Amino acid sequence: MPIDPRKVLRLNVPQWQGGDRPAYRIGGRVLAALAPDAQGPEETVPVPAETGAERPLEQGILSRGALLRQVDAALSAIDRHAPEAIVTLGGDCHVDFAPIVYLSEKYGDDLAVLWVDAHPDIQGPAQTSSAHAHVLAMLMGEGDKGLSSALRRPIKPQQILYVGLTETSPFETGFIRDRGIARLSPEDLEGSPVKVLEWVRASGARKVAVHFDVDVLDPSRYGFVLFHQPGLPPGAWDEVPKGRMTLDEVARILTAVDAEADIVGLAITEYLPWDAIGLSRSLSALPLLGTK
Amino acid sequence: MPIDPRKVLRLNVPQWQGGDRPAYRIGGRVLAALAPDAQGPEETVPVPAETGAERPLEQGILSRGALLRQVDAALSAIDRHAPEAIVTLGGDCHVDFAPIVYLSEKYGDDLAVLWVDAHPDIQGPAQTSSAHAHVLAMLMGEGDKGLSSALRRPIKPQQILYVGLTETSPFETGFIRDRGIARLSPEDLEGSPVKVLEWVRASGARKVAVHFDVDVLDPSRYGFVLFHQPGLPPGAWDEVPKGRMTLDEVARILTAVDAEADIVGLAITEYLPWDAIGLSRSLSALPLLGTK
Repeated sequence: MPIDPRKVLRLNVPQWQGGDRPAYRIGGRVLAALAPDAQGPEETVPVPAETGAERPLEQGILSRGALLRQVDAALSAIDRHAPEAIVTLGGDCHVDFAPIVYLSEKYGDDLAVLWVDAHPDIQGPAQTSSAHAHVLAMLMGEGDKGLSSALRRPIKPQQILYVGLTETSPFETGFIRDRGIARLSPEDLEGSPVKVLEWVRASGARKVAVHFDVDVLDPSRYGFVLFHQPGLPPGAWDEVPKGRMTLDEVARILTAVDAEADIVGLAITEYLPWDAIGLSRSLSALPLLGTK
Repeated sequence: MPIDPRKVLRLNVPQWQGGDRPAYRIGGRVLAALAPDAQGPEETVPVPAETGAERPLEQGILSRGALLRQVDAALSAIDRHAPEAIVTLGGDCHVDFAPIVYLSEKYGDDLAVLWVDAHPDIQGPAQTSSAHAHVLAMLMGEGDKGLSSALRRPIKPQQILYVGLTETSPFETGFIRDRGIARLSPEDLEGSPVKVLEWVRASGARKVAVHFDVDVLDPSRYGFVLFHQPGLPPGAWDEVPKGRMTLDEVARILTAVDAEADIVGLAITEYLPWDAIGLSRSLSALPLLGTK
């Protein structure tokens, strides 16, 4: 049954604290601005701008209080509309916590989660203090109990397929293997939706939530990913695995999946349009516009 | 007397019809998203997206009805707040009509207008059907009477200084000369605010409205101007004069002027972030986000 566009909630969450990088806020605002107009309700979670104040580390997580408040605000916004589906425009990857909490409760075992990302997002405070790398673990009921206390029905590992996942660390590789989460690298996909469709069919799920972190895309083709941050020394990101997909490949997979099942969640995250971010900083110096 | 930031109206006008180019709408929305947060009231003029419907030519002006409605909406928004100053984020150049109508009535002969633009914007329907190239003439009380019927106190030619103006057509050159409007080319400026400050001092004005069309910037340095539209044959814009300034030069001029007088208007127009515009089109093809 196709989703009624008027029952799709557009949820804008220009959150930066989960990645501890203020530029995600501008990226999130720009992404919401350039996205096609919503045909159903639209909500924007208030996200304070970075102020230069300290970002406290609590229980191993940076800005944990702000993240908790933003999860609460997102869930309230979602519950207000009780949508059939949610388009979430981040912000950092952690913005997909609240939408999938809602979709998991609503659709239960009928839901599959496609995590379209170069990175698995299943670390914990022992690995990194940035919650955007914890979010899928939290959705499975692991990690910080407080930050995931809103979780109503944990996602089972068998409900998850990684799409475009690249090289993982020993910790990540073990986590994924131990729980039996399916993974498809860009090379496994061979530019085709076929293996994703086979997995969706085999899963029996009729509803699909898609997490689309733009860092799954090949940075040699797209300027709006983290790895193009200006002003860094050459090689600054050499140790971090990078995406190897194209936007067309992702679009073909989503279109094929949508023909097979109902896509009920689409989160786009970690968009960093560096030219716009640079212009934002330049405008801050102008009379009337600047805050000085 | 410095302007109270809480009495500065932020006016977002993602208008595209004055330039007859739907991409201005996305550019305007993105510009509003990346701008520093407003500290006073904020209003957004509703601008319908392009629908593929015909854009009627009335009295020599494309989409004249839509422009009239948007001028009315902008003036209503301004009058609602009775601000001391207005930051206008376009959209095409025509978005600066309503703000300057208001500022001219409020400040009268105490207002100077700095038109920071590669182009003079004083054409009429006989020269072009795109009203964004008419706007300064309309503010002087010339051109389409209906579209400028809201004008309360016309700007006198002596109140205007062109900053960064490049080569003008015979019609434009004659118009500017006949009315005695002052003009400074990028070469006249020599990268310094001095000549602008001299003009402002000589004018006696204590309030300044700045129109900043980003096409005053050198396209070899900035990707977000019209001349970088993708997919055009080489040389497509060879006949159109291009800007030769830098963002730093414009910022230095504005900062120097603001130390000498009160900047009470700042409109930024014709921002075309082509990468974001391209991504917008790509997202339109995705399930849940697309409008198909």
